Amino acid sequence: MTHRITITNPLDPRLDDIRDLKHSDAKKDLVFAEGPLVCGRLVESRFPVRSVIGFGGRLDTFLADFGERLPEGVPVYEVTRELLGEVAGYDMHRGLLAVGERPEPLSVADVIDGARTVVVLEGVGDHENIGSIFRNAAGMSVDGVLFGAGTADPLYRRSVRVSMGHVLRTPFAHLDGTGTTWQRSLEQLRDAGWWLVSLTPDDGAVHIKEALAGREEQKVALLVGGEGPGLTEHAMRATDVRAKIPMAEGTDSLNVATSAAIAFYERARGL
Amino acid sequence: MTHRITITNPLDPRLDDIRDLKHSDAKKDLVFAEGPLVCGRLVESRFPVRSVIGFGGRLDTFLADFGERLPEGVPVYEVTRELLGEVAGYDMHRGLLAVGERPEPLSVADVIDGARTVVVLEGVGDHENIGSIFRNAAGMSVDGVLFGAGTADPLYRRSVRVSMGHVLRTPFAHLDGTGTTWQRSLEQLRDAGWWLVSLTPDDGAVHIKEALAGREEQKVALLVGGEGPGLTEHAMRATDVRAKIPMAEGTDSLNVATSAAIAFYERARGL
Repeated sequence: MTHRITITNPLDPRLDDIRDLKHSDAKKDLVFAEGPLVCGRLVESRFPVRSVIGFGGRLDTFLADFGERLPEGVPVYEVTRELLGEVAGYDMHRGLLAVGERPEPLSVADVIDGARTVVVLEGVGDHENIGSIFRNAAGMSVDGVLFGAGTADPLYRRSVRVSMGHVLRTPFAHLDGTGTTWQRSLEQLRDAGWWLVSLTPDDGAVHIKEALAGREEQKVALLVGGEGPGLTEHAMRATDVRAKIPMAEGTDSLNVATSAAIAFYERARGL
Repeated sequence: MTHRITITNPLDPRLDDIRDLKHSDAKKDLVFAEGPLVCGRLVESRFPVRSVIGFGGRLDTFLADFGERLPEGVPVYEVTRELLGEVAGYDMHRGLLAVGERPEPLSVADVIDGARTVVVLEGVGDHENIGSIFRNAAGMSVDGVLFGAGTADPLYRRSVRVSMGHVLRTPFAHLDGTGTTWQRSLEQLRDAGWWLVSLTPDDGAVHIKEALAGREEQKVALLVGGEGPGLTEHAMRATDVRAKIPMAEGTDSLNVATSAAIAFYERARGL
Protein backbone atom coordinates (compact mmCIF):
# COMPACT_ATOMS: atom_id res chain seq x y z
CA MET A 1 0.00 0.00 0.00
CA THR A 2 1.31 3.39 -0.96
CA HIS A 3 1.54 5.78 1.96
CA ARG A 4 0.13 8.94 0.31
CA ILE A 5 -0.02 12.23 2.22
CA THR A 6 -1.13 15.67 1.07
CA ILE A 7 1.02 18.57 2.25
CA THR A 8 -0.23 22.14 1.97
CA ASN A 9 2.14 24.03 4.27
CA PRO A 10 5.46 24.99 2.64
CA LEU A 11 7.12 25.00 6.06
CA ASP A 12 6.21 21.36 6.75
CA PRO A 13 9.43 19.72 8.02
CA ARG A 14 8.70 16.59 5.99
CA LEU A 15 9.78 18.66 2.97
CA ASP A 16 13.13 19.65 4.51
CA ASP A 17 15.05 17.26 2.26
CA ILE A 18 14.11 19.30 -0.78
CA ARG A 19 14.19 22.76 0.77
CA ASP A 20 16.15 25.27 -1.33
CA LEU A 21 17.29 22.43 -3.53
CA LYS A 22 18.29 24.81 -6.25
CA HIS A 23 21.23 26.03 -4.21
CA SER A 24 22.10 23.28 -1.82
CA ASP A 25 21.61 19.81 -3.19
CA ALA A 26 25.28 18.91 -2.84
CA LYS A 27 25.20 19.71 0.87
CA LYS A 28 22.43 17.30 1.68
CA ASP A 29 24.26 14.05 1.08
CA LEU A 30 21.19 12.67 -0.60
CA VAL A 31 20.36 12.03 -4.21
CA PHE A 32 17.50 13.67 -6.09
CA ALA A 33 15.70 12.21 -9.07
CA GLU A 34 13.58 14.54 -11.20
CA GLY A 35 10.86 13.47 -13.59
CA PRO A 36 9.17 10.12 -14.13
CA LEU A 37 11.96 8.39 -16.05
CA VAL A 38 14.70 9.18 -13.54
CA CYS A 39 12.43 8.60 -10.52
CA GLY A 40 11.67 5.15 -11.91
CA ARG A 41 15.38 4.47 -12.24
CA LEU A 42 15.89 5.51 -8.63
CA VAL A 43 13.20 3.07 -7.47
CA GLU A 44 14.88 0.27 -9.44
CA SER A 45 18.36 1.15 -8.16
CA ARG A 46 20.48 0.15 -5.18
CA PHE A 47 19.80 3.61 -3.65
CA PRO A 48 17.22 3.45 -0.83
CA VAL A 49 14.22 5.69 -1.59
CA ARG A 50 13.37 8.14 1.17
CA SER A 51 10.34 9.90 -0.28
CA VAL A 52 8.48 10.71 -3.47
CA ILE A 53 7.00 14.17 -4.01
CA GLY A 54 4.78 15.25 -6.86
CA PHE A 55 1.57 16.66 -8.19
CA GLY A 56 -1.16 15.95 -10.69
CA GLY A 57 -1.20 13.28 -13.35
CA ARG A 58 2.52 12.66 -13.23
CA LEU A 59 2.27 11.44 -9.68
CA ASP A 60 -0.68 9.19 -10.49
CA THR A 61 1.05 7.67 -13.49
CA PHE A 62 4.23 7.12 -11.54
CA LEU A 63 2.42 5.37 -8.72
CA ALA A 64 0.54 3.20 -11.19
CA ASP A 65 3.87 2.16 -12.76
CA PHE A 66 6.14 1.98 -9.74
CA GLY A 67 3.91 2.04 -6.64
CA GLU A 68 4.25 -1.72 -6.20
CA ARG A 69 8.00 -1.46 -6.17
CA LEU A 70 8.18 1.26 -3.52
CA PRO A 71 9.21 -0.33 -0.23
CA GLU A 72 6.63 -0.38 2.57
CA GLY A 73 6.54 2.89 4.48
CA VAL A 74 8.17 5.19 1.90
CA PRO A 75 6.02 8.33 2.05
CA VAL A 76 4.52 9.85 -1.09
CA TYR A 77 3.83 13.55 -0.64
CA GLU A 78 1.22 15.13 -2.83
CA VAL A 79 1.72 18.88 -3.23
CA THR A 80 0.85 21.62 -5.72
CA ARG A 81 3.26 22.78 -8.39
CA GLU A 82 3.37 26.19 -6.67
CA LEU A 83 4.20 24.71 -3.29
CA LEU A 84 6.89 22.48 -4.72
CA GLY A 85 8.41 25.46 -6.54
CA GLU A 86 8.34 27.54 -3.39
CA VAL A 87 10.04 24.88 -1.28
CA ALA A 88 12.65 23.69 -3.78
CA GLY A 89 13.35 27.15 -5.15
CA TYR A 90 12.67 26.43 -8.81
CA ASP A 91 9.77 25.40 -10.99
CA MET A 92 9.64 21.62 -10.98
CA HIS A 93 7.85 21.35 -14.32
CA ARG A 94 8.46 17.62 -14.54
CA GLY A 95 5.95 17.22 -11.72
CA LEU A 96 7.82 14.56 -9.83
CA LEU A 97 10.80 14.32 -7.53
CA ALA A 98 12.14 11.41 -5.55
CA VAL A 99 14.72 11.55 -2.79
CA GLY A 100 17.20 8.74 -2.27
CA GLU A 101 19.88 8.00 0.26
CA ARG A 102 23.47 7.42 -0.72
CA PRO A 103 24.38 3.82 -0.01
CA GLU A 104 27.88 2.67 0.97
CA PRO A 105 30.24 3.39 -1.93
CA LEU A 106 31.12 0.43 -4.12
CA SER A 107 34.69 -0.81 -4.20
CA VAL A 108 36.81 -0.89 -7.33
CA ALA A 109 36.56 -4.68 -7.16
CA ASP A 110 32.74 -4.42 -7.21
CA VAL A 111 32.89 -2.28 -10.34
CA ILE A 112 35.37 -4.30 -12.37
CA ASP A 113 34.04 -7.71 -11.38
CA GLY A 114 32.61 -9.20 -14.56
CA ALA A 115 33.13 -5.95 -16.46
CA ARG A 116 34.49 -5.91 -19.98
CA THR A 117 34.84 -2.17 -20.54
CA VAL A 118 35.22 0.63 -17.99
CA VAL A 119 35.95 4.33 -18.27
CA VAL A 120 38.38 6.04 -15.89
CA LEU A 121 37.84 9.76 -15.32
CA GLU A 122 40.54 12.09 -14.10
CA GLY A 123 39.90 15.78 -13.35
CA VAL A 124 36.51 15.93 -15.05
CA GLY A 125 35.05 18.70 -12.93
CA ASP A 126 31.87 19.59 -14.79
CA HIS A 127 28.64 17.99 -13.57
CA GLU A 128 27.02 18.09 -16.97
CA ASN A 129 29.96 16.30 -18.59
CA ILE A 130 29.90 13.66 -15.85
CA GLY A 131 26.19 13.12 -16.47
CA SER A 132 26.70 12.88 -20.25
CA ILE A 133 29.51 10.38 -19.81
CA PHE A 134 27.26 8.11 -17.73
CA ARG A 135 24.46 8.41 -20.29
CA ASN A 136 26.79 7.57 -23.16
CA ALA A 137 28.48 4.77 -21.20
CA ALA A 138 25.13 3.13 -20.52
CA GLY A 139 24.04 3.50 -24.13
CA MET A 140 27.19 1.94 -25.51
CA SER A 141 27.70 -0.94 -23.09
CA VAL A 142 30.42 0.45 -20.86
CA ASP A 143 30.03 -1.52 -17.63
CA GLY A 144 31.47 0.79 -14.98
CA VAL A 145 33.07 4.12 -14.17
CA LEU A 146 36.20 4.66 -12.06
CA PHE A 147 37.05 8.08 -10.66
CA GLY A 148 40.45 9.55 -10.06
CA ALA A 149 41.24 12.87 -8.39
CA GLY A 150 39.52 16.15 -9.23
CA THR A 151 36.34 14.67 -10.56
CA ALA A 152 32.92 16.13 -9.82
CA ASP A 153 30.29 14.32 -7.76
CA PRO A 154 28.22 12.13 -10.08
CA LEU A 155 25.30 12.24 -7.64
CA TYR A 156 24.88 15.98 -7.85
CA ARG A 157 21.41 16.84 -9.11
CA ARG A 158 22.56 18.13 -12.48
CA SER A 159 24.65 15.02 -13.15
CA VAL A 160 21.75 12.76 -12.24
CA ARG A 161 19.45 14.66 -14.60
CA VAL A 162 21.84 14.83 -17.57
CA SER A 163 22.71 11.15 -17.13
CA MET A 164 18.98 10.33 -17.44
CA GLY A 165 19.39 8.48 -14.14
CA HIS A 166 22.21 6.24 -15.35
CA VAL A 167 24.46 7.36 -12.46
CA LEU A 168 22.02 5.34 -10.33
CA ARG A 169 22.46 2.20 -12.45
CA THR A 170 26.01 2.06 -13.76
CA PRO A 171 28.38 1.09 -10.93
CA PHE A 172 31.17 3.51 -10.07
CA ALA A 173 33.97 3.70 -7.50
CA HIS A 174 36.99 5.81 -6.62
CA LEU A 175 40.48 4.69 -7.48
CA ASP A 176 42.97 5.99 -4.92
CA GLY A 177 45.91 8.27 -5.16
CA THR A 178 47.46 11.24 -6.89
CA GLY A 179 50.76 11.49 -8.71
CA THR A 180 52.82 8.32 -8.42
CA THR A 181 50.30 6.56 -6.15
CA TRP A 182 47.63 7.25 -8.75
CA GLN A 183 49.93 5.84 -11.38
CA ARG A 184 50.36 2.71 -9.26
CA SER A 185 46.58 2.32 -8.83
CA LEU A 186 46.25 2.29 -12.59
CA GLU A 187 49.17 -0.10 -13.01
CA GLN A 188 47.41 -2.54 -10.69
CA LEU A 189 44.49 -2.50 -13.06
CA ARG A 190 46.89 -3.20 -15.91
CA ASP A 191 48.51 -6.01 -13.94
CA ALA A 192 45.03 -7.49 -13.51
CA GLY A 193 44.81 -7.94 -17.27
CA TRP A 194 43.16 -4.70 -18.33
CA TRP A 195 44.27 -2.97 -21.52
CA LEU A 196 44.63 0.70 -20.56
CA VAL A 197 44.04 3.37 -23.20
CA SER A 198 44.67 7.11 -22.62
CA LEU A 199 42.55 9.46 -24.69
CA THR A 200 44.59 12.51 -25.61
CA PRO A 201 44.75 14.99 -28.48
CA ASP A 202 48.57 14.63 -28.59
CA ASP A 203 50.01 14.41 -32.07
CA GLY A 204 52.06 11.36 -31.13
CA ALA A 205 49.00 9.33 -30.15
CA VAL A 206 47.65 6.62 -32.44
CA HIS A 207 44.14 6.57 -33.90
CA ILE A 208 41.69 5.20 -31.34
CA LYS A 209 40.73 2.48 -33.82
CA GLU A 210 44.32 1.24 -33.83
CA ALA A 211 44.57 1.46 -30.04
CA LEU A 212 41.61 -0.90 -29.71
CA ALA A 213 42.19 -3.19 -32.69
CA GLY A 214 42.87 -6.76 -31.64
CA ARG A 215 41.71 -6.10 -28.07
CA GLU A 216 38.19 -7.44 -28.58
CA GLU A 217 38.79 -10.34 -26.18
CA GLN A 218 40.61 -8.27 -23.59
CA LYS A 219 39.16 -6.11 -20.82
CA VAL A 220 39.57 -2.44 -21.73
CA ALA A 221 39.79 0.68 -19.54
CA LEU A 222 39.42 3.98 -21.38
CA LEU A 223 41.03 6.94 -19.57
CA VAL A 224 39.66 10.43 -20.11
CA GLY A 225 40.99 13.68 -18.63
CA GLY A 226 39.40 17.03 -17.88
CA GLU A 227 38.83 19.57 -20.62
CA GLY A 228 41.79 21.85 -20.89
CA PRO A 229 44.54 20.03 -19.01
CA GLY A 230 43.65 16.53 -20.21
CA LEU A 231 45.14 13.48 -18.50
CA THR A 232 48.14 13.88 -16.23
CA GLU A 233 51.44 12.45 -17.34
CA HIS A 234 51.28 10.02 -14.39
CA ALA A 235 48.02 8.61 -15.70
CA MET A 236 49.29 8.32 -19.24
CA ARG A 237 52.50 6.62 -18.15
CA ALA A 238 50.46 3.86 -16.53
CA THR A 239 48.58 3.08 -19.74
CA ASP A 240 49.44 0.73 -22.58
CA VAL A 241 48.70 3.15 -25.37
CA ARG A 242 47.91 6.82 -26.05
CA ALA A 243 45.02 7.21 -28.46
CA LYS A 244 43.44 10.14 -30.25
CA ILE A 245 40.41 10.99 -32.29
CA PRO A 246 41.94 12.63 -35.36
CA MET A 247 40.88 16.26 -35.67
CA ALA A 248 40.63 18.50 -38.71
CA GLU A 249 43.32 21.15 -39.13
CA GLY A 250 42.68 24.38 -37.22
CA THR A 251 40.06 22.96 -34.87
CA ASP A 252 40.03 22.46 -31.13
CA SER A 253 39.67 19.19 -29.32
CA LEU A 254 36.17 17.83 -28.79
CA ASN A 255 34.16 18.19 -25.62
CA VAL A 256 35.25 15.52 -23.10
CA ALA A 257 31.89 13.72 -23.08
CA THR A 258 31.85 13.67 -26.89
CA SER A 259 35.39 12.27 -27.04
CA ALA A 260 34.47 9.61 -24.52
CA ALA A 261 31.32 8.74 -26.50
CA ILE A 262 33.39 8.20 -29.63
CA ALA A 263 35.81 5.97 -27.74
CA PHE A 264 32.86 3.96 -26.33
CA TYR A 265 31.45 3.67 -29.83
CA GLU A 266 34.77 2.48 -31.25
CA ARG A 267 35.04 -0.12 -28.48
CA ALA A 268 31.47 -1.37 -29.02
CA ARG A 269 32.01 -1.33 -32.79
CA GLY A 270 34.62 -4.06 -32.52
CA LEU A 271 32.67 -6.32 -30.14
CA MET B 1 45.25 52.01 -37.09
CA THR B 2 42.83 50.73 -34.49
CA HIS B 3 40.09 53.17 -33.67
CA ARG B 4 40.05 52.81 -29.85
CA ILE B 5 37.49 54.72 -27.77
CA THR B 6 36.86 54.66 -24.01
CA ILE B 7 33.20 54.65 -22.98
CA THR B 8 32.22 55.39 -19.38
CA ASN B 9 28.50 56.12 -19.68
CA PRO B 10 26.30 53.01 -19.74
CA LEU B 11 23.64 54.91 -21.67
CA ASP B 12 26.02 55.71 -24.52
CA PRO B 13 24.10 54.85 -27.74
CA ARG B 14 27.23 53.34 -29.26
CA LEU B 15 26.59 50.40 -26.94
CA ASP B 16 23.00 49.89 -28.13
CA ASP B 17 23.93 46.77 -30.12
CA ILE B 18 24.77 44.94 -26.92
CA ARG B 19 22.11 46.43 -24.66
CA ASP B 20 20.22 43.77 -22.66
CA LEU B 21 21.94 41.11 -24.71
CA LYS B 22 21.04 38.47 -22.19
CA HIS B 23 17.40 38.61 -23.17
CA SER B 24 17.29 39.90 -26.69
CA ASP B 25 20.17 38.77 -28.85
CA ALA B 26 17.91 36.97 -31.30
CA LYS B 27 15.94 40.15 -31.97
CA LYS B 28 18.92 42.18 -33.04
CA ASP B 29 19.67 40.43 -36.30
CA LEU B 30 23.34 40.64 -35.52
CA VAL B 31 25.83 38.06 -34.37
CA PHE B 32 27.76 38.22 -31.09
CA ALA B 33 31.13 36.65 -30.45
CA GLU B 34 32.24 36.24 -26.84
CA GLY B 35 35.79 35.69 -25.68
CA PRO B 36 39.10 35.95 -27.54
CA LEU B 37 38.89 32.67 -29.46
CA VAL B 38 35.43 33.28 -30.89
CA CYS B 39 36.09 37.00 -31.50
CA GLY B 40 39.14 35.99 -33.51
CA ARG B 41 37.03 33.62 -35.56
CA LEU B 42 34.54 36.41 -36.23
CA VAL B 43 37.31 38.67 -37.51
CA GLU B 44 38.53 35.90 -39.83
CA SER B 45 35.01 35.07 -41.06
CA ARG B 46 32.79 36.30 -43.88
CA PHE B 47 30.70 38.20 -41.29
CA PRO B 48 31.40 41.96 -41.33
CA VAL B 49 32.62 43.16 -37.93
CA ARG B 50 30.68 46.12 -36.53
CA SER B 51 32.47 46.73 -33.24
CA VAL B 52 34.72 45.19 -30.62
CA ILE B 53 34.07 45.82 -26.92
CA GLY B 54 36.27 44.76 -24.04
CA PHE B 55 38.32 45.57 -21.02
CA GLY B 56 41.74 44.95 -19.51
CA GLY B 57 44.39 42.58 -20.73
CA ARG B 58 42.03 40.56 -22.90
CA LEU B 59 41.37 43.56 -25.09
CA ASP B 60 45.09 44.37 -25.38
CA THR B 61 45.98 40.79 -26.30
CA PHE B 62 43.19 40.59 -28.82
CA LEU B 63 44.24 43.81 -30.52
CA ALA B 64 47.85 42.64 -30.61
CA ASP B 65 46.73 39.42 -32.32
CA PHE B 66 43.93 40.65 -34.56
CA GLY B 67 44.15 44.44 -34.66
CA GLU B 68 45.82 44.36 -38.07
CA ARG B 69 42.98 42.30 -39.49
CA LEU B 70 40.22 44.59 -38.29
CA PRO B 71 38.97 46.65 -41.23
CA GLU B 72 39.64 50.39 -41.16
CA GLY B 73 37.05 52.27 -39.12
CA VAL B 74 35.73 49.39 -36.99
CA PRO B 75 35.43 50.94 -33.53
CA VAL B 76 37.00 49.30 -30.48
CA TYR B 77 35.23 50.34 -27.29
CA GLU B 78 37.14 50.08 -24.06
CA VAL B 79 34.88 49.75 -21.04
CA THR B 80 35.03 48.38 -17.50
CA ARG B 81 33.80 44.93 -16.61
CA GLU B 82 31.09 46.52 -14.45
CA LEU B 83 29.87 48.77 -17.26
CA LEU B 84 29.81 45.91 -19.76
CA GLY B 85 27.85 43.79 -17.28
CA GLU B 86 25.39 46.59 -16.68
CA VAL B 87 24.77 47.21 -20.37
CA ALA B 88 24.64 43.58 -21.58
CA GLY B 89 22.79 42.32 -18.51
CA TYR B 90 25.24 39.60 -17.49
CA ASP B 91 28.81 39.34 -16.30
CA MET B 92 31.01 39.13 -19.38
CA HIS B 93 33.86 37.36 -17.61
CA ARG B 94 35.60 36.55 -20.88
CA GLY B 95 36.40 40.25 -21.15
CA LEU B 96 35.75 40.57 -24.84
CA LEU B 97 32.78 40.80 -27.15
CA ALA B 98 32.60 41.47 -30.86
CA VAL B 99 29.51 42.35 -32.86
CA GLY B 100 29.09 41.17 -36.43
CA GLU B 101 26.52 41.71 -39.13
CA ARG B 102 24.72 38.87 -40.79
CA PRO B 103 25.75 38.67 -44.42
CA GLU B 104 23.49 37.45 -47.22
CA PRO B 105 22.64 33.80 -46.59
CA LEU B 106 24.60 31.28 -48.62
CA SER B 107 22.79 29.11 -51.15
CA VAL B 108 22.67 25.34 -50.99
CA ALA B 109 24.90 25.34 -54.07
CA ASP B 110 27.49 27.45 -52.20
CA VAL B 111 27.53 24.94 -49.35
CA ILE B 112 27.75 21.73 -51.36
CA ASP B 113 30.19 23.02 -53.96
CA GLY B 114 33.40 21.09 -53.41
CA ALA B 115 32.04 19.45 -50.26
CA ARG B 116 32.54 15.78 -49.53
CA THR B 117 30.46 15.41 -46.37
CA VAL B 118 27.54 17.51 -45.16
CA VAL B 119 25.09 17.16 -42.31
CA VAL B 120 21.38 17.90 -42.82
CA LEU B 121 19.45 18.95 -39.71
CA GLU B 122 15.69 18.64 -39.39
CA GLY B 123 13.78 19.89 -36.35
CA VAL B 124 16.81 20.37 -34.14
CA GLY B 125 15.41 23.15 -31.99
CA ASP B 126 17.96 23.47 -29.22
CA HIS B 127 20.63 26.15 -29.60
CA GLU B 128 23.19 24.25 -27.59
CA ASN B 129 22.78 21.14 -29.73
CA ILE B 130 23.14 23.23 -32.88
CA GLY B 131 26.34 24.74 -31.51
CA SER B 132 27.73 21.32 -30.57
CA ILE B 133 26.93 19.94 -33.99
CA PHE B 134 28.91 22.74 -35.65
CA ARG B 135 31.84 22.22 -33.28
CA ASN B 136 31.87 18.48 -33.92
CA ALA B 137 31.40 18.94 -37.66
CA ALA B 138 34.40 21.25 -37.84
CA GLY B 139 36.51 18.89 -35.75
CA MET B 140 35.74 15.88 -37.88
CA SER B 141 35.94 17.39 -41.36
CA VAL B 142 32.27 17.82 -42.20
CA ASP B 143 32.26 20.54 -44.84
CA GLY B 144 28.83 22.11 -44.49
CA VAL B 145 25.48 22.15 -42.74
CA LEU B 146 22.06 22.18 -44.41
CA PHE B 147 18.94 23.11 -42.46
CA GLY B 148 15.45 21.81 -42.90
CA ALA B 149 12.32 23.01 -41.12
CA GLY B 150 12.06 23.52 -37.37
CA THR B 151 15.73 24.11 -36.76
CA ALA B 152 17.01 26.73 -34.33
CA ASP B 153 19.01 29.76 -35.45
CA PRO B 154 22.71 28.82 -35.54
CA LEU B 155 23.67 32.48 -35.08
CA TYR B 156 21.97 32.82 -31.73
CA ARG B 157 24.50 33.78 -29.06
CA ARG B 158 24.41 30.45 -27.27
CA SER B 159 24.94 28.50 -30.49
CA VAL B 160 27.87 30.70 -31.44
CA ARG B 161 29.46 30.16 -28.03
CA VAL B 162 28.93 26.40 -27.83
CA SER B 163 30.18 26.00 -31.41
CA MET B 164 33.43 27.75 -30.37
CA GLY B 165 32.76 30.12 -33.26
CA HIS B 166 32.51 27.40 -35.90
CA VAL B 167 29.06 28.61 -36.98
CA LEU B 168 31.00 31.56 -38.39
CA ARG B 169 33.34 29.34 -40.41
CA THR B 170 31.46 26.27 -41.56
CA PRO B 171 29.11 27.22 -44.41
CA PHE B 172 25.41 26.56 -43.92
CA ALA B 173 22.21 27.12 -45.90
CA HIS B 174 18.52 26.33 -45.78
CA LEU B 175 17.02 23.59 -47.90
CA ASP B 176 13.43 24.40 -48.83
CA GLY B 177 10.16 22.73 -48.10
CA THR B 178 8.15 20.68 -45.70
CA GLY B 179 6.46 17.32 -46.23
CA THR B 180 6.63 16.18 -49.84
CA THR B 181 8.41 19.32 -51.05
CA TRP B 182 11.05 18.74 -48.39
CA GLN B 183 11.33 15.16 -49.58
CA ARG B 184 11.85 16.44 -53.13
CA SER B 185 14.57 18.87 -51.98
CA LEU B 186 16.44 15.96 -50.50
CA GLU B 187 15.87 13.79 -53.56
CA GLN B 188 17.49 16.49 -55.68
CA LEU B 189 20.57 16.17 -53.53
CA ARG B 190 20.48 12.43 -54.09
CA ASP B 191 20.05 12.93 -57.83
CA ALA B 192 23.17 15.11 -57.73
CA GLY B 193 25.20 12.11 -56.62
CA TRP B 194 25.01 12.41 -52.84
CA TRP B 195 24.61 9.27 -50.72
CA LEU B 196 21.91 10.15 -48.21
CA VAL B 197 21.98 8.50 -44.78
CA SER B 198 19.20 8.91 -42.17
CA LEU B 199 20.30 8.56 -38.55
CA THR B 200 17.53 6.90 -36.58
CA PRO B 201 17.25 4.64 -33.55
CA ASP B 202 14.79 2.38 -35.45
CA ASP B 203 15.38 -1.33 -34.97
CA GLY B 204 15.22 -1.92 -38.69
CA ALA B 205 18.10 0.43 -39.43
CA VAL B 206 21.55 -0.90 -40.27
CA HIS B 207 24.71 -0.16 -38.27
CA ILE B 208 26.12 3.23 -39.28
CA LYS B 209 29.38 1.50 -40.22
CA GLU B 210 27.52 -0.60 -42.78
CA ALA B 211 25.60 2.40 -44.08
CA LEU B 212 28.88 4.15 -44.88
CA ALA B 213 31.02 1.19 -45.93
CA GLY B 214 32.07 1.40 -49.56
CA ARG B 215 31.00 5.06 -49.83
CA GLU B 216 34.46 6.51 -49.25
CA GLU B 217 34.63 7.92 -52.76
CA GLN B 218 31.07 9.20 -52.78
CA LYS B 219 29.71 12.47 -51.38
CA VAL B 220 27.76 11.77 -48.20
CA ALA B 221 24.93 13.69 -46.52
CA LEU B 222 24.14 12.62 -42.95
CA LEU B 223 20.57 13.45 -41.85
CA VAL B 224 19.83 14.04 -38.20
CA GLY B 225 16.43 14.77 -36.63
CA GLY B 226 15.38 16.51 -33.43
CA GLU B 227 15.54 14.74 -30.10
CA GLY B 228 12.25 13.05 -29.39
CA PRO B 229 10.53 12.95 -32.76
CA GLY B 230 13.63 12.19 -34.83
CA LEU B 231 13.53 12.53 -38.61
CA THR B 232 10.21 12.77 -40.40
CA GLU B 233 9.14 9.91 -42.59
CA HIS B 234 9.34 12.24 -45.62
CA ALA B 235 13.00 12.87 -44.89
CA MET B 236 13.80 9.21 -44.38
CA ARG B 237 12.00 8.20 -47.55
CA ALA B 238 14.28 10.45 -49.56
CA THR B 239 17.42 8.81 -48.24
CA ASP B 240 19.35 5.80 -49.49
CA VAL B 241 19.72 4.07 -46.15
CA ARG B 242 18.53 4.25 -42.54
CA ALA B 243 21.39 3.89 -40.11
CA LYS B 244 21.64 3.51 -36.36
CA ILE B 245 24.20 3.59 -33.60
CA PRO B 246 23.53 0.32 -31.78
CA MET B 247 22.39 0.93 -28.21
CA ALA B 248 22.61 -1.28 -25.14
CA GLU B 249 19.40 -2.92 -23.94
CA GLY B 250 17.24 -0.74 -21.69
CA THR B 251 18.89 2.56 -22.60
CA ASP B 252 17.58 5.62 -24.37
CA SER B 253 18.88 7.08 -27.58
CA LEU B 254 21.90 9.36 -27.41
CA ASN B 255 21.75 13.13 -27.42
CA VAL B 256 21.39 14.40 -31.00
CA ALA B 257 24.78 16.15 -31.06
CA THR B 258 26.48 13.04 -29.70
CA SER B 259 24.80 10.83 -32.31
CA ALA B 260 25.87 13.22 -35.04
CA ALA B 261 29.43 13.27 -33.67
CA ILE B 262 29.61 9.50 -33.87
CA ALA B 263 28.33 9.54 -37.44
CA PHE B 264 30.93 12.19 -38.35
CA TYR B 265 33.61 10.06 -36.71
CA GLU B 266 32.51 6.95 -38.61
CA ARG B 267 32.58 8.90 -41.87
CA ALA B 268 36.05 10.35 -41.18
CA ARG B 269 37.25 6.94 -40.00
CA GLY B 270 36.82 5.49 -43.47
CA LEU B 271 38.44 8.37 -45.37
